[in-house]
Amino acid sequence: MDGLVIRPTAAAAAARRPDLPPDLRLALACFGPRRPGQGPREECGVFGIYGHPEAARMAYYGLHALQHRGEESAGIAVADGRRLEVVKGMGLVTDVFSEESLGRLLGDRAIGHVRYSTTGASVPANAQPYVVRGRRGSLAIAHNGNFTNARVLRDRLEQEGAIFTTTADTEVLAHLIARHRWEAGGLEAAIARALQEIRGAYALVMLTEEKLIGLRDPHGIRPLALGKLGDAWVLASESCAFDAIGAEFVRETAPGEMVVVEGGRLTSRQALPAAGPSRLCIFEYVYFARPDSNLQGRNVHAARKEMGRQLAREAPAAADLVIGVPDSSVSAATGFAEESGIPYEMGLVKNRYIGRTFIQPRQGLRAQGVRMKHNPLRMVLEGKRVVLVDDSIVRGTTLRHLIGLLREAGAREVHLRIASPPYVNSCHYGIDTADSGSLVARGRSIEAVREYVGADSLHYLSLEGLIRAVGIASPEMGFCHACFTGEYPVPVDEEAGKDALEAAEDG
Amino acid sequence: MDGLVIRPTAAAAAARRPDLPPDLRLALACFGPRRPGQGPREECGVFGIYGHPEAARMAYYGLHALQHRGEESAGIAVADGRRLEVVKGMGLVTDVFSEESLGRLLGDRAIGHVRYSTTGASVPANAQPYVVRGRRGSLAIAHNGNFTNARVLRDRLEQEGAIFTTTADTEVLAHLIARHRWEAGGLEAAIARALQEIRGAYALVMLTEEKLIGLRDPHGIRPLALGKLGDAWVLASESCAFDAIGAEFVRETAPGEMVVVEGGRLTSRQALPAAGPSRLCIFEYVYFARPDSNLQGRNVHAARKEMGRQLAREAPAAADLVIGVPDSSVSAATGFAEESGIPYEMGLVKNRYIGRTFIQPRQGLRAQGVRMKHNPLRMVLEGKRVVLVDDSIVRGTTLRHLIGLLREAGAREVHLRIASPPYVNSCHYGIDTADSGSLVARGRSIEAVREYVGADSLHYLSLEGLIRAVGIASPEMGFCHACFTGEYPVPVDEEAGKDALEAAEDG
Amino acid sequence: MDGLVIRPTAAAAAARRPDLPPDLRLALACFGPRRPGQGPREECGVFGIYGHPEAARMAYYGLHALQHRGEESAGIAVADGRRLEVVKGMGLVTDVFSEESLGRLLGDRAIGHVRYSTTGASVPANAQPYVVRGRRGSLAIAHNGNFTNARVLRDRLEQEGAIFTTTADTEVLAHLIARHRWEAGGLEAAIARALQEIRGAYALVMLTEEKLIGLRDPHGIRPLALGKLGDAWVLASESCAFDAIGAEFVRETAPGEMVVVEGGRLTSRQALPAAGPSRLCIFEYVYFARPDSNLQGRNVHAARKEMGRQLAREAPAAADLVIGVPDSSVSAATGFAEESGIPYEMGLVKNRYIGRTFIQPRQGLRAQGVRMKHNPLRMVLEGKRVVLVDDSIVRGTTLRHLIGLLREAGAREVHLRIASPPYVNSCHYGIDTADSGSLVARGRSIEAVREYVGADSLHYLSLEGLIRAVGIASPEMGFCHACFTGEYPVPVDEEAGKDALEAAEDG
Amino acid sequence: MDGLVIRPTAAAAAARRPDLPPDLRLALACFGPRRPGQGPREECGVFGIYGHPEAARMAYYGLHALQHRGEESAGIAVADGRRLEVVKGMGLVTDVFSEESLGRLLGDRAIGHVRYSTTGASVPANAQPYVVRGRRGSLAIAHNGNFTNARVLRDRLEQEGAIFTTTADTEVLAHLIARHRWEAGGLEAAIARALQEIRGAYALVMLTEEKLIGLRDPHGIRPLALGKLGDAWVLASESCAFDAIGAEFVRETAPGEMVVVEGGRLTSRQALPAAGPSRLCIFEYVYFARPDSNLQGRNVHAARKEMGRQLAREAPAAADLVIGVPDSSVSAATGFAEESGIPYEMGLVKNRYIGRTFIQPRQGLRAQGVRMKHNPLRMVLEGKRVVLVDDSIVRGTTLRHLIGLLREAGAREVHLRIASPPYVNSCHYGIDTADSGSLVARGRSIEAVREYVGADSLHYLSLEGLIRAVGIASPEMGFCHACFTGEYPVPVDEEAGKDALEAAEDG
Repeated sequence: MDGLVIRPTAAAAAARRPDLPPDLRLALACFGPRRPGQGPREECGVFGIYGHPEAARMAYYGLHALQHRGEESAGIAVADGRRLEVVKGMGLVTDVFSEESLGRLLGDRAIGHVRYSTTGASVPANAQPYVVRGRRGSLAIAHNGNFTNARVLRDRLEQEGAIFTTTADTEVLAHLIARHRWEAGGLEAAIARALQEIRGAYALVMLTEEKLIGLRDPHGIRPLALGKLGDAWVLASESCAFDAIGAEFVRETAPGEMVVVEGGRLTSRQALPAAGPSRLCIFEYVYFARPDSNLQGRNVHAARKEMGRQLAREAPAAADLVIGVPDSSVSAATGFAEESGIPYEMGLVKNRYIGRTFIQPRQGLRAQGVRMKHNPLRMVLEGKRVVLVDDSIVRGTTLRHLIGLLREAGAREVHLRIASPPYVNSCHYGIDTADSGSLVARGRSIEAVREYVGADSLHYLSLEGLIRAVGIASPEMGFCHACFTGEYPVPVDEEAGKDALEAAEDG
Repeated sequence: MDGLVIRPTAAAAAARRPDLPPDLRLALACFGPRRPGQGPREECGVFGIYGHPEAARMAYYGLHALQHRGEESAGIAVADGRRLEVVKGMGLVTDVFSEESLGRLLGDRAIGHVRYSTTGASVPANAQPYVVRGRRGSLAIAHNGNFTNARVLRDRLEQEGAIFTTTADTEVLAHLIARHRWEAGGLEAAIARALQEIRGAYALVMLTEEKLIGLRDPHGIRPLALGKLGDAWVLASESCAFDAIGAEFVRETAPGEMVVVEGGRLTSRQALPAAGPSRLCIFEYVYFARPDSNLQGRNVHAARKEMGRQLAREAPAAADLVIGVPDSSVSAATGFAEESGIPYEMGLVKNRYIGRTFIQPRQGLRAQGVRMKHNPLRMVLEGKRVVLVDDSIVRGTTLRHLIGLLREAGAREVHLRIASPPYVNSCHYGIDTADSGSLVARGRSIEAVREYVGADSLHYLSLEGLIRAVGIASPEMGFCHACFTGEYPVPVDEEAGKDALEAAEDG
Repeated sequence: MDGLVIRPTAAAAAARRPDLPPDLRLALACFGPRRPGQGPREECGVFGIYGHPEAARMAYYGLHALQHRGEESAGIAVADGRRLEVVKGMGLVTDVFSEESLGRLLGDRAIGHVRYSTTGASVPANAQPYVVRGRRGSLAIAHNGNFTNARVLRDRLEQEGAIFTTTADTEVLAHLIARHRWEAGGLEAAIARALQEIRGAYALVMLTEEKLIGLRDPHGIRPLALGKLGDAWVLASESCAFDAIGAEFVRETAPGEMVVVEGGRLTSRQALPAAGPSRLCIFEYVYFARPDSNLQGRNVHAARKEMGRQLAREAPAAADLVIGVPDSSVSAATGFAEESGIPYEMGLVKNRYIGRTFIQPRQGLRAQGVRMKHNPLRMVLEGKRVVLVDDSIVRGTTLRHLIGLLREAGAREVHLRIASPPYVNSCHYGIDTADSGSLVARGRSIEAVREYVGADSLHYLSLEGLIRAVGIASPEMGFCHACFTGEYPVPVDEEAGKDALEAAEDG
Repeated sequence: MDGLVIRPTAAAAAARRPDLPPDLRLALACFGPRRPGQGPREECGVFGIYGHPEAARMAYYGLHALQHRGEESAGIAVADGRRLEVVKGMGLVTDVFSEESLGRLLGDRAIGHVRYSTTGASVPANAQPYVVRGRRGSLAIAHNGNFTNARVLRDRLEQEGAIFTTTADTEVLAHLIARHRWEAGGLEAAIARALQEIRGAYALVMLTEEKLIGLRDPHGIRPLALGKLGDAWVLASESCAFDAIGAEFVRETAPGEMVVVEGGRLTSRQALPAAGPSRLCIFEYVYFARPDSNLQGRNVHAARKEMGRQLAREAPAAADLVIGVPDSSVSAATGFAEESGIPYEMGLVKNRYIGRTFIQPRQGLRAQGVRMKHNPLRMVLEGKRVVLVDDSIVRGTTLRHLIGLLREAGAREVHLRIASPPYVNSCHYGIDTADSGSLVARGRSIEAVREYVGADSLHYLSLEGLIRAVGIASPEMGFCHACFTGEYPVPVDEEAGKDALEAAEDG
């Protein structure tokens, strides 16, 4: 986990401005969230609870534990059987909620959401839960994932007279549910029918005045776990949210499964037929999930450490010490160190305080901008041959810069080892890696990437090695690894990038 | 004009809480906006401009001049021919906009809105302009008024699969437009068709990436004027907004008229046939409009002063001095004084600083709470027979209290004169007087009202006197005076109160 | 009272910037507090209470009533016999205090302060009460007025090793008290001795952990009244603060008197010998005080009205109507109207909403900037000969502009009548009229002033007329009218302008 | 470094409230800064720069790098040769400064300060730099450390008539300087004379309109380093601040040395004679300093790692894995692991997002409160014998709780190893460990401490081992280790605790 207390604000935005000089953009990128330019931004985190007297407060703590999955906006909807209220806003969970606003969210059932924009602009209107108000009651939706045919559906809905007030594809789902809600079978049937029209990857948590509903896509690409806290049922993207409130993990929800909690009882149905073996996003293990979360029974830290071990086996290096990029690559780096016998060292020290309002440097950026976030330890590095372990390379700009810093601090050789295969394809299932053109490994040889980032050697973990490291593959349990292989389990609408819906607006 | 710098926040909300003792509620009411408990809250103000390089800034100044029409939320949408952006939020115009946010609203056309909730809760989601985003572009809507058949339409739309995210009836209009937008005739035709389904009173200002559109209901109940600032066209609820930006008044828009500015040119069409003679809300003259505004060519201050004169003729009083309740009744009080020959005096001094965060008294409320807002001048009042002029009586609670204060300050007699007829019917055309049950004059004799407020005598202006005072009645130009007479020009959906849509949510 | 909800922020500051074009500065000035450029800024307001269980809350309401005396910063110190706490900050009373911060100010005795800077920069460090913490306890000081020999004293103190952290002259007093505090007689004696070294005009309210102390300068230039609320004693600059909390006026404090409340009992001593007859600032009646306040037994509104009457006698005009500049000149204008028989009219309508964050116009300023605050009523003015009554002319810029607006709105003649004599000397006793060079009447003939402001005729009220209008002159009760006559009752240190102390810093 | 993005706000404050149940206080303490209840709070960080066109901006970055030394308030004073301005406030560097406020701080010389209160309450008035304004110019003081005779000096100064507006002992220094400033020798001589009266530990950075001055106490207890950035001279508490702005380390300042930069030139003098060998605070190495800082030429991370190694030699444990308390103990833990051959593991995962506005749990606190900050990894811990390494034990409450969590997560044995000797004496030189009564090791046997925290075994590093690990001891270079040994190099005023000055106020 690379959990900066930072939001993708001015710094990150500025880092993408083509009119700025590359050096400046590079430096700015280093202030962005989760090493932008390198790590992809997480998509979203969802949480739900039913049957707790302080449901909103529990959602607050749960979202806080899931904060790394989305630092841009946060929201909680709460219901008490008769009313449904929502509070949401831009910023971290701790920014959006106060004792006062939490105090107003009364009820024993709640859902919550933290968000990075994967579709839709970073504007207040797109904060979730998205709430529809109607005669039959309200429906609040919290969504992690992406609908690959959102644009096509949206076009069709518009032609039929639907109106859209956000650019998030969650609104498409709301429209489809509304269109089926007057048919037989009630809300659950309407949701199931709506999802039959939707392609993509999603974990959904929904709330009405009365019910809590959880749903997972037929491939099981995005995670959604079920837990219990006393008599209350809990849903969360990651198990670390259960730990935060003292809840126990019960099980993962199954691909295509819909769980409904109503009247205190949980029922489950297969809302959509499972689409073959489970296909959990393998990048959750590589980078996204918190190390203390377990996914499909596998601890993320342990899996990462094994990736490092496997990497050491596949691509050993003659070196004096191993360092990881803090914080997300520390697990893999220690695994590499243990397997290789090369000592692990703290070669980079990270400033924990970089916050959302950090004022950017204006000059002498190269030296200052990056060092302000990652300070290399000359005492450790000087004259040494270094293995630098990182979890992945997305754009490569930050790594390139970090390697420069290591050399400035005296590192004699820098051998870069990446604990996952080359990242060559955009994700269309809820992860914002922007267009594939910015992926440094796409269309480039490993040698070219090595040259770009300036390492003395570069090796990636093999896909087989990665899968083995995660260690839970089986006939029923596979992975989505399209970012590495291009094997997309769900067909992708070509136009559907993050801004597809927005681009369409002006069309 | 009774322009408090105050918003209907805690004070006003608390004043309605049934669990509080009546005395406390009374005192709280005195801190609310525009003497709540007495004056009805204004509905909304709209503004539009096309062809000015700083359109958003002009909207800001225009809305600032219209602030008395809505202190709860404010918003501006701006377009430049290609993009449409919106900024809106809770609070006064000066709270919602900063140099920075105004600076981001680039474009030469804009609309703006200030709001009191007449339908829909006082929540951020209901702030306007309401913006719909679609493939054919965006549509921003700013709305002053009320749709009397909103609930019926909403039910029908929901049955057809429409979803609603706000409780404002503006969203009903957006849905209807969307449903007609794919038909022949483009946006203007779609709007006209949508409005054919709608009953009610409205002044609408809309903006797309390219066009500015203004519309007025077929009865002309809510005002909408057209002005010019250099080459730019301007629309506003009241002419004072033109003065604020140095624009010239051109003309009132006509009942049912749609004006469209596009490509720099203004065109006009009769979107809906005018429904008989014009029926401008006569309460705009009595209370709502700023005294420096002209409506249908008649200055509001001059009309109010004439109301006072007429009142003096109809209901003279033997008294030593005339005082008005500041600020809205000063015009009428001076008219009464001039006509009667009784000197006008400043008997009540108002604290101008009561702001939105004013902390309420906790004890000794009766004396302190009200005096903090209106301090009676003992030197003026002691031993005197006083004529107290007010524009209207809605709930009567504040007047009752003020009369008590006058007596405490030594007034020997208090003769209450109201510059309009008894207010006995709820408005369904955009004014929030809540349910008719709270109208003190409804179902009560004038004598009973007099007793309730504690005056020595009480007289109202006759409807004929009021109409004569406004002085612009003609076969073509009538008024809506349903609040006094119950003669509603547009049929009213019985269920349609302010919270009708919200109540429906849980239905 | 001209009670804008505005603070002397960006607008007022910008209005003084020499690098801006005159037109822009003029327009900006019109947004400033209390018509800057014309009206002098009020100095400060003080409040004290002893023996009320909610002392801080009472101070809050009292300061709120005194808000017109200082909109720049506010503060309250509270004590309970053992501890003394203070909360202060920039802004209006309602900005500085929240329920939470008020809730922390526990104790039954408190003092409060609202401030305009008269000496000292507009910075947080200068907010009052000023609190000194020492072994013998704390001392909080709230000060209205000015020490004319502050600079000399400060120099001497510095030479003796004193340090200064603010630029307010209150700190000089604190130092002097500290130097005498170890002498016999305790705090009261130390204060008396300190004040023997000080020249100037002041009303002081002080608080220790145990005592409430009130003090007035030997000439009685600044007002300070004593009141009672149940068993609690109250001190305030103006009686309107008593009305706000339901307290009764007891008496004015006497020149040189020190009142001490301790152990629930009030004692009085003559701390300094009275310096001849009382010399209350006559400008309090002309402009500063709230119309509902009584000073020395004379109601301010009544006095102003009489000024208008007297002015009509001294300088009649052949005109069709009388208008006043809202709000401070309305009393005088109605007096003029009544005496002259010329009807009073509302010729200018003021926007009540101009707040502290108002965003300034950037172009087309002349027309928009001023009209946004004062909108002339064409219907009233057109073709008319107008008497415009104002309380005073300080710089003349706003009046000049208002007269232009009246003419644009059709006024045929504008006869300016000023309800006080020509303002030709700077105040050195706590009123910020800046340097005398900016006083338009200083060194100019009345004809030249008339020409500058663009009136058809101009007459001032005579000093004798003014004194007669106030109507309380006697051998014991005189006035300070140095601003009109240059007869300063207290010798003035030549260097002591507002920024004297600051200028000294760099010396 | 344990760099939380948190400030000692409500959580920390509440954790000390005696009226709360122990469990709640414990949980609250876990949200406080730097594991309050366990780690001592850092005192302050200082920074100075002379000769850089963006001096304030450099100070901002420098303070940001020193943020771990004080999260409570931040301030920057800047000068340009003629004027000196200051901006300061409560909160993190990124909270206090905005682009706008930084933009107003123009000048080529600046000092900055981050603060924990060591003397003086956590109130805005105590934020630094402390600025004195006088005829001879201004003097801004930023202070890290503590004056042990502050109370005696303050009493004496008060008797001489000095007044105090803060409770910080910096004000004592300002008074003493002021008293000597009129003597021969100018400011530098006055400072030297003032410091001759002061006992204690301090690193001071001062700024006048013209000069930058740095000073270190005669024992060299608090660190202060000198660096260079191009032509600009830089002073900072730790070298990591140099790295942040790309400056080069030049040298440590010497005990008793005063460096003055004026006219671009740096001069050095021995302001006070060095008091024997240098006595740098050894706790800087143990806990305070950032791991990437070098103090006296020794890298902090390297020293900590060696402490872990030495600890493994002195107190080996039979265990399966070694874990450290993140973040401050990771260096020592890896050293222990390497030396012992027992694998290092990530047994606790820390939530990086806990911010200043975190809303506290109300129930079920024990489990939730702590886990929300530190989540133990069951996969790592289950069935294992664990060595838990921490840098020190102050109060022991958090460690006690963490050990409980480790056991809950399945740890079979927990062997606690502390990388420093028992912390048994309060620091009087600038570190807030409150009264010695709360130190768990004071007056308790190691066995008793072990029992209290619930470890299976407990061993501390020996003082000799610690000194050897730091590895720079020499006849000239010793340490202050009074917290471990009670050998205070500077006599301590018995009364001087953190609140001594405040307590005195009421005396």
